[in-house]
Amino acid sequence: MEPGCLRLAVLASGRGSNFLAILEAIKQGRLNAQIEVLISDKSAALALQKAEEAGIPHIFIDPSLFPDRPSYESEIVKQLQAREIDLVVLAGYMRLVGKVLLQAYPHRIVNIHPALLPSFTGLHAQRQAVDYGVKFSGCTVHFVDDGMDTGPIIEQVVVPVLPDDSEDDLAERILVQEHELYARVLQWIAEGRVYIEGRKIYVDHD
Amino acid sequence: MEPGCLRLAVLASGRGSNFLAILEAIKQGRLNAQIEVLISDKSAALALQKAEEAGIPHIFIDPSLFPDRPSYESEIVKQLQAREIDLVVLAGYMRLVGKVLLQAYPHRIVNIHPALLPSFTGLHAQRQAVDYGVKFSGCTVHFVDDGMDTGPIIEQVVVPVLPDDSEDDLAERILVQEHELYARVLQWIAEGRVYIEGRKIYVDHD
Repeated sequence: MEPGCLRLAVLASGRGSNFLAILEAIKQGRLNAQIEVLISDKSAALALQKAEEAGIPHIFIDPSLFPDRPSYESEIVKQLQAREIDLVVLAGYMRLVGKVLLQAYPHRIVNIHPALLPSFTGLHAQRQAVDYGVKFSGCTVHFVDDGMDTGPIIEQVVVPVLPDDSEDDLAERILVQEHELYARVLQWIAEGRVYIEGRKIYVDHD
Repeated sequence: MEPGCLRLAVLASGRGSNFLAILEAIKQGRLNAQIEVLISDKSAALALQKAEEAGIPHIFIDPSLFPDRPSYESEIVKQLQAREIDLVVLAGYMRLVGKVLLQAYPHRIVNIHPALLPSFTGLHAQRQAVDYGVKFSGCTVHFVDDGMDTGPIIEQVVVPVLPDDSEDDLAERILVQEHELYARVLQWIAEGRVYIEGRKIYVDHD
């Protein structure tokens, strides 16, 4: 991707805390990007309300109005292309990404996952970590592929799990790092520092 | 386990570098334990030779002489019981532990694995980590259960994976941490600081 001001679309199904963290990073000048649109698959997503308050264009696309995933994703792609989006940012988007979206934005869809992948994929990663009894967990930003949380890893942050952590304790500690990590990685992409070689991601820190 | 000088048996199939690291920790007074015996399932294991040089009793038990795993493990248990072993320490022991050994030493068998479990179980954990493209790996000391590298985790150390790491580069960096970690965890056990509650392991650091 050429360096420059990234035109982002954020896809969110929930409260949109990573969406807000990215917005804040842009405002503070830490991230050379613009959120052109927030798209949600849930009409009640708090993220939509937050986008409204922040003056960010936002769309609810109702999956139940489409016969299958390809047609649903075609509508998303139409919205993205209309806004000349450079990069699709998943932020608590609770659906697997399918072929239509992947083929329209190859290596241009990123996700953040609240675990040190490949440990604890899927839902409730923080609860999985607490239940397993690991001593460290963390968060991972990766390019999205057709698996669940299996794409090439761009960066990870390690977060300790403390002896009496509840799921919520750990989730909160990881979330602080997610907010910092996501903005940092997006800025690397904006600066054209991120190179992909198969499953390996190289970041040019010079 | 009551605090005191731990009577250890080490099971090893290979070069025995963790065996030597434990021996060194004992000599330096960092670990209140004694290695009563080293047992190997490989006649050519360098660990046997190292035990010989260090004056540690050592036995090769040939699995091919036994009809099945239970009978093979019964021989191991016989050797352990004859020496009043407190704790069985796996150090590059390349066999799954079965019921006979587990039932004779419940929560008294520990293993070290060169990855941040539950990521990268089984063989070639360092190669798996490099091939996957993770940014952090590490090592894990855990109690052994009937799965492969699935038992309750006592402690983990995080090790960074560098951009151009080969499998050997990463293995070497992790090994330094393994040697330190294993002796440290064994000393916690010797001091009676390690408590088990289901899958969760608590270490009393007061």
